[in-house]
Amino acid sequence: MKSVKIGLIGAGTIGKGIIELISSNKQLIADRTGVSLEVKAICDKDAGTLKDIGGKNVSVKTADANDLINDVDIDIIVELIGGINPAKEIILSALKNKKHVVTANKALLSGHWKDIFDTASASGVLVNFEASVGGAIPIIRTIRESFVADKINVIYGILNGTTNFILTKMDEEHCSFDDALKVAQEKGIAESDPELDISGKDSAHKLAILSLLGFGKDISPEDIFTEGIENIEPEDIARAYNGGYSVKLLAIAKNTSAGLELRVHPTLLPESHLLSGVKGEDNAIFVKGEFIEDSLLFGKGAGRRPTAGSVVGDIVEIAKHVAFDKEDAAPYNLNYSSEDKNLKAMEELDLSYYLRFSVIDNPGVLAGISSVLSENEISIASVLQEERNQGEIVPVIIVTHKAKEGRMMNAISRIDKMDCIKNKTVVIRIEE
Amino acid sequence: MKSVKIGLIGAGTIGKGIIELISSNKQLIADRTGVSLEVKAICDKDAGTLKDIGGKNVSVKTADANDLINDVDIDIIVELIGGINPAKEIILSALKNKKHVVTANKALLSGHWKDIFDTASASGVLVNFEASVGGAIPIIRTIRESFVADKINVIYGILNGTTNFILTKMDEEHCSFDDALKVAQEKGIAESDPELDISGKDSAHKLAILSLLGFGKDISPEDIFTEGIENIEPEDIARAYNGGYSVKLLAIAKNTSAGLELRVHPTLLPESHLLSGVKGEDNAIFVKGEFIEDSLLFGKGAGRRPTAGSVVGDIVEIAKHVAFDKEDAAPYNLNYSSEDKNLKAMEELDLSYYLRFSVIDNPGVLAGISSVLSENEISIASVLQEERNQGEIVPVIIVTHKAKEGRMMNAISRIDKMDCIKNKTVVIRIEE
Repeated sequence: MKSVKIGLIGAGTIGKGIIELISSNKQLIADRTGVSLEVKAICDKDAGTLKDIGGKNVSVKTADANDLINDVDIDIIVELIGGINPAKEIILSALKNKKHVVTANKALLSGHWKDIFDTASASGVLVNFEASVGGAIPIIRTIRESFVADKINVIYGILNGTTNFILTKMDEEHCSFDDALKVAQEKGIAESDPELDISGKDSAHKLAILSLLGFGKDISPEDIFTEGIENIEPEDIARAYNGGYSVKLLAIAKNTSAGLELRVHPTLLPESHLLSGVKGEDNAIFVKGEFIEDSLLFGKGAGRRPTAGSVVGDIVEIAKHVAFDKEDAAPYNLNYSSEDKNLKAMEELDLSYYLRFSVIDNPGVLAGISSVLSENEISIASVLQEERNQGEIVPVIIVTHKAKEGRMMNAISRIDKMDCIKNKTVVIRIEE
Repeated sequence: MKSVKIGLIGAGTIGKGIIELISSNKQLIADRTGVSLEVKAICDKDAGTLKDIGGKNVSVKTADANDLINDVDIDIIVELIGGINPAKEIILSALKNKKHVVTANKALLSGHWKDIFDTASASGVLVNFEASVGGAIPIIRTIRESFVADKINVIYGILNGTTNFILTKMDEEHCSFDDALKVAQEKGIAESDPELDISGKDSAHKLAILSLLGFGKDISPEDIFTEGIENIEPEDIARAYNGGYSVKLLAIAKNTSAGLELRVHPTLLPESHLLSGVKGEDNAIFVKGEFIEDSLLFGKGAGRRPTAGSVVGDIVEIAKHVAFDKEDAAPYNLNYSSEDKNLKAMEELDLSYYLRFSVIDNPGVLAGISSVLSENEISIASVLQEERNQGEIVPVIIVTHKAKEGRMMNAISRIDKMDCIKNKTVVIRIEE
């Protein structure tokens, strides 16, 4: 039996899950692969954490990542500290030292892709990152290997469990965004500073990784139009549901002959679409390829055990390479071109919209709104204005036919300046 | 650029799809992997087929598979003829000749697993078979690689597109099994002899492959309780739907401490389960692991282009090994034990049931049926008997609480002998 030695950097929740998984399934993994995984070293800044971890087989416990990177015994470094610094320096040093790396660090990967993979290729080592997108969902391996022969045209993803949990909670319990967020924080699903999740930025990091792999372009999160869920109210979700739609924070990528379309925003999605059935913390990714056609992968997007399952899958793949292939790893041919990303401008997209205006219910208000829409060549599909007492703030809901995003933003900006408008208009894009 | 040479055996629908895919995406594949795929040789028994295929780059066209197997230039043999003989002899000869093999032949793989993989390991070559289960769905790679570190507890699969198309058609158009089958045959979804599909045998072949990979036991299709969909009527589907269930031909595998449970049969599945949303020809597989938890993969289960996408994904994986690894492939550690399969007996399972009795509507009929159920310790959850004219044949629907399968079969066999029963009772097992 060949033994492969691992160094873990970061002994938080996921690190503990990995140690638990390797310890309980060591024999199973050995039977399936012929390789024995050994966690030789653990690095963490917190001495108390280190003290209680890893059992008697871990021979190195240290606060200094260099102790692992410079250990000639260690084949694979697993980076679990997150964030850009010092994770980037640690990973680059490890790669230069010919250590293979496993990471789930989507912020780092999406922003510093080229540095990492160029360094890995130069050293002939591997970087695996399955858990960086979709937790336990094998989407990275699927795009890189199973769909490697196909041109991918569309990716739709529910890539953030926190926001999907909040939207599901608002839907099922008709509670406000703030209340749903509070429950998510109490359950440990949302962080105390939830901005990265609810703003859509976390989803944009993940979509950048999928787009780079799927479309071969040097996409960064800044290339992705990103909008969060903080303005959605339970009434919006209820109305969408009655119209046959769910509301999801959707990451959308489309590769068309006219260019690449990349966006993350709350989206009305038909109830009949498989992604509409994805509730709570779950994640799912829909991929449409020219040959493989419609495909969907669903699973746990986060959590100690599912993420550990995914990270150890990555470790095992590298461990088999270490044990059985004498050669350097094949270089990364990620086929990304920095030259022309050929991004479609958001303003040029033709989309349909759900609009909720908060108006003082006086005569002529609807006429005022609709004339601004009309001047921007936006055609109305349906209007809902419930009867209330004159002078009160009421919602007016307008669903539009397809219109140019640029014109829509122009119209909304003008309407939001009207005297009768009392709150920022809520805009939810519709995807059919 | 490294070039890897392929020999295709069988130039039918899928073979043509593969040639089309490699031809249109050759540059894309080369950019992504650094490998150029070349179809050097095609073998088919039909001279007319060979004449029109492959373009100018194919230098060998032959009716003799040995011309490909003995060609020192060829790295990978793709077997597409299906069936056991001569596919088995061709694959074993190719492996002995140190050719890597790609196949989608589930009947062959599920029945002759050991021969094939032992031969491959002895020769240090690879056998890939992603398209053997679930067409374009990357379930084989997911179980073998992404979930390699986890203990899998449950697999539920809609593994046969033909039967799922028929059941969906019966549901949506309220047509009979025979009419739905006729439509499927006209559309080329069902074969002229559809027995392998509608009997559930095709699903059992695929479940055997998944079980072997997932549970490490030497499972063959004969180990799997298998029942087809031919007795289902549209009324059964409509009643199920009203009760909040869909009817699916489900392949079920559960790995419990009490043993392995393997079965393929029509199943009532809650409408809220993601698999209930899988319609028409589509396939999907749900996998529950101890760490990865709930996971689902959905996609096209068959068809020229999706299957070609999957097969070429397999080819590319091997091509990268041929191009970049100088060593023999790692041996297959499939961890299957022939010793104790520890199969649970079907009779011992505790299941709940939907039963449709066809009775002459006379007084005392329901009393007679329910007393036989009661003697077999089967407790009734609900009864539906619509009012009809006395003396006519009417359906009586009984849904049971959990009961032992053996007792249920005993009860049905006794009830079906009663004078008032006019047709074989329809039994659909319920999965919650």
